[in-house]
Amino acid sequence: MKYLHTMVRVNDLDKSLEFYCDKLGLEQRGRYDVEAGRFTLVFLSAPGNEDAQVELTHNWDPEELDEGRNFGHLAYEVENIYDVCQRLQDNGVTINRPPRDGRMAFVRSPDNISIELLQRGEALPIQEPWASMDNVGHW
Amino acid sequence: MKYLHTMVRVNDLDKSLEFYCDKLGLEQRGRYDVEAGRFTLVFLSAPGNEDAQVELTHNWDPEELDEGRNFGHLAYEVENIYDVCQRLQDNGVTINRPPRDGRMAFVRSPDNISIELLQRGEALPIQEPWASMDNVGHW
Repeated sequence: MKYLHTMVRVNDLDKSLEFYCDKLGLEQRGRYDVEAGRFTLVFLSAPGNEDAQVELTHNWDPEELDEGRNFGHLAYEVENIYDVCQRLQDNGVTINRPPRDGRMAFVRSPDNISIELLQRGEALPIQEPWASMDNVGHW
Repeated sequence: MKYLHTMVRVNDLDKSLEFYCDKLGLEQRGRYDVEAGRFTLVFLSAPGNEDAQVELTHNWDPEELDEGRNFGHLAYEVENIYDVCQRLQDNGVTINRPPRDGRMAFVRSPDNISIELLQRGEALPIQEPWASMDNVGHW
């Protein structure tokens, strides 16, 4: 038995690929445009960790993608949590839970999928501007 | 960068462990009962695939765990999809999308997290009772 992927639905595929790939750092592993079913599937995963994927499902006909409480978040380990948060913030992503402790942060995808970032190994030394940055919204 | 886990919230931890472990086949990797925060975290993963986990969060104070449309499902590859569906069904789990094609099935957790099961490698030969089994609900 093997974990394959977590599927999330996305309303705007370009905006989602920009978020998950250009900003967060995942890479595209496959894309299937299914004309008959009017949907596109895109499989993403972290560099060097190709097996554990996220599947983006984009239904071509608009739908409301509300969030529920039974799903929590996706979590990724990163090499340097400050660098990732800086890159996300520089590209317009709100850091909902800044890495004040040098260890953990939360952001959200364009469709409000909560994403946890965890520092690989030990926490980094506490550092501004993160140390005194407030939470924004929920995650 | 590395995928760590998908977190889902659960209302009844015992019932959830029964579903994810005894019925579906995941194994427990760690459990943290946090008295101060009044929550329990349990990490699960497939045998032989310890790195890609599911985190169950059980908040001790009751909350409504509704489902949203932005999250889709968790997907696992299995050795024999008929065996897994039979075990689930024998233990009272509804097979929402039976493996009519010998390849794909969907079930739901006690908190309505949709779970996709995919046959490893090629589809199995079409087989009753699965071939003529109807869908139940959505997933």
